[in-house]
Amino acid sequence: MNIFSIIKKKQLGLEHNSKELNFLISSYVNNEIPDFQISAWLMATLLNGMTKKEMSLYTKEIINSGEKINFDYLNTEYIIDKHSTGGVGDKVSFILGPILASIGCYIPMIAGRGLGHTGGTIDKLESIPGYNTNLNIEKFKSIVENVGISIIGQTKEICPADKKLYLLRDLTGTIESIPLICGSILSKKIAEGIKTLILDVKFGNGAFMGTKKDAQKLGEILKSVGEKFNIEVYPFYTNMDQPLGNSCGLWCEIQESIECLKGQGPKDLMEIVTYLAINTLKNLKISDPQKKINQVIEDGSALNKFQDMVHSHSGEIDSLYDKKTNKPKFFKYIYAKQNGYIESMKTKDIGYSLIEIGAGRKNKLDILDNTAGILFYKKCNFNVKKGDKLAKIFCSNEIKLSKGYDLLKKSIILNNRI
Amino acid sequence: MNIFSIIKKKQLGLEHNSKELNFLISSYVNNEIPDFQISAWLMATLLNGMTKKEMSLYTKEIINSGEKINFDYLNTEYIIDKHSTGGVGDKVSFILGPILASIGCYIPMIAGRGLGHTGGTIDKLESIPGYNTNLNIEKFKSIVENVGISIIGQTKEICPADKKLYLLRDLTGTIESIPLICGSILSKKIAEGIKTLILDVKFGNGAFMGTKKDAQKLGEILKSVGEKFNIEVYPFYTNMDQPLGNSCGLWCEIQESIECLKGQGPKDLMEIVTYLAINTLKNLKISDPQKKINQVIEDGSALNKFQDMVHSHSGEIDSLYDKKTNKPKFFKYIYAKQNGYIESMKTKDIGYSLIEIGAGRKNKLDILDNTAGILFYKKCNFNVKKGDKLAKIFCSNEIKLSKGYDLLKKSIILNNRI
Repeated sequence: MNIFSIIKKKQLGLEHNSKELNFLISSYVNNEIPDFQISAWLMATLLNGMTKKEMSLYTKEIINSGEKINFDYLNTEYIIDKHSTGGVGDKVSFILGPILASIGCYIPMIAGRGLGHTGGTIDKLESIPGYNTNLNIEKFKSIVENVGISIIGQTKEICPADKKLYLLRDLTGTIESIPLICGSILSKKIAEGIKTLILDVKFGNGAFMGTKKDAQKLGEILKSVGEKFNIEVYPFYTNMDQPLGNSCGLWCEIQESIECLKGQGPKDLMEIVTYLAINTLKNLKISDPQKKINQVIEDGSALNKFQDMVHSHSGEIDSLYDKKTNKPKFFKYIYAKQNGYIESMKTKDIGYSLIEIGAGRKNKLDILDNTAGILFYKKCNFNVKKGDKLAKIFCSNEIKLSKGYDLLKKSIILNNRI
Repeated sequence: MNIFSIIKKKQLGLEHNSKELNFLISSYVNNEIPDFQISAWLMATLLNGMTKKEMSLYTKEIINSGEKINFDYLNTEYIIDKHSTGGVGDKVSFILGPILASIGCYIPMIAGRGLGHTGGTIDKLESIPGYNTNLNIEKFKSIVENVGISIIGQTKEICPADKKLYLLRDLTGTIESIPLICGSILSKKIAEGIKTLILDVKFGNGAFMGTKKDAQKLGEILKSVGEKFNIEVYPFYTNMDQPLGNSCGLWCEIQESIECLKGQGPKDLMEIVTYLAINTLKNLKISDPQKKINQVIEDGSALNKFQDMVHSHSGEIDSLYDKKTNKPKFFKYIYAKQNGYIESMKTKDIGYSLIEIGAGRKNKLDILDNTAGILFYKKCNFNVKKGDKLAKIFCSNEIKLSKGYDLLKKSIILNNRI
């Protein structure tokens, strides 16, 4: 067994067996295979694919590279995580998670940072003063058990192979491969010890998958590979042709999530949250889902759940409602140049505009600006009059603001027909 | 311009432009791009290919990574090199080169070491006591000018990009790519300052190209890319379904070449030498090629030319004819186990058997055994009687000999029909 023959096999489009994938992953994690050989294999895999059997074996090896959490002692079937394939303004986890936890589900969520043009759940959470996303597994388990929900960043104990592979994929153009995406997403979710995965596969001009068809292909594969590990994967396909909700950025998304948990969120965002929540509860055979969702929002228990989670992670609850928290130093408005309607939004460019103002990273070591964000007053298909405010962009660095503004301006496309 | 976008472009199967290839090669040579990104690009190139235009641009960038030799001052069109795509027992250069040089051609040849199962011209030359394959460009030019032929190994001045890329390709399963082979072969030949390239494309079970069709595909591409650099490439397609000549190894191939230069070489080998020589001379519009070839062999001038080259490279002429030079310590015979005929030879395995006995390398740093080799008494389609000697295998390490013997024995396939 050697890495050279494994590379050649995938280069020829052949199927790997369990031994080969074990050798590949374990040797790489143990630094016995250099990056330059793995990256050749990654590219061959991206271009020649994997069978479903291979994907399961590959996922298994990534799981086995680290620890696996077990929640059997909770003695419940309702151990759930939700994963989104990434978008702009996607803050669904902060709303859906506490709602489901208030209804009696357990949500152990290991989330990621910003990737490409998309925002990062962990980056947004870290804008909450004091919130610690870097907990050990024992503490994570204890919060899940006692609060019902914990959201942390990737740890070195869980799937170390994925962390190492992901860094290399990010630098070698090998992110967009269904087998590699499958291994990366499912390994971490399975190692979390969940029984059910709500999969929000985004499609559209702000998603990694351009079309619903591509999104479905990924969703079906993840469902089928999940089954091999006794995880129920429920894929949902939601549109990302414009940012989700009215706010995108870091702190401003936490604020909008709180509005949603108060029952005052924007319609498009709440529609997706409700759609995912109802269908998940139905799948879990929990009765009266709509009624239960309305109730936990109306009686404040979903918001309390969010606050309990923040508190358990050392986050400052008072700061959530303090107007001075993460107040941006600078802002600019985008105005309509003509009468008409918003025909489309270049959602990916809106994501890049957020990176310009410091809500995302250009380089791994960039420090984020928690105050950075965009507020949209109008979205697609809204009629506008010349001079109307379309959006407000804000952050705490004037030069960066100006760069983000220039890009954002070109990302909102007006049509002057009415 | 960044390497990431270049990798993505080739991953999507798009055509690179001149600027991208310049950035890729020059940054890599200057250590500004890590191996793991280049290997992803190499695999994408192997799987998605290049257009002929790209191959020319890629070749140009490899040439421009180093120095280019100019022989214009010799004021002749007859500056020729010969390249073989590699085989077992292929010693054509040592015979064809001196023949052409005796007829008035200039042969500046930068050759390679053993690769995979194939033998290396430079490894064979270095079995001549004293022969220095590592000359600087000035000395190389001076030998070409004064003797007519010089064969050296790859220098650090000529195409350094190829040297670096080749090492990486060898470790990442990206050797067998026509665009990458094209860039690697032609860059060095063009940088040598030649006007004509005799290309001996081998096909068959001992060649890199299994079929004549694949060989022709490579030959035609090399011809067409060569034209862009004003090099006439004459591709010839010759069979490698069994070793060429009767001897393969290191010193024994030098000995067989001398026999050929004396007019006493084996038929199959001399046929190929003559075929390549006659057609090359015809292409160069040199009259009476067959007559001239016969003459330089008969009057000893081709052998003298070989000796002059050896001498100019500090090789010991006397040693060429001393029976004690590179005398193997151990040998074994392979005998026919039955009456019949030799149906086929597993030529690649014969190559691997040569590696076992030390005529080739398993690892980069292995030291070769100059005494190692195989002598065939019978070749394909020869009738044999039970107990006939089929081959003799020899080297100076008894354990290695035994490993090579075991493999060689299984590589000669007898059929008992007569």
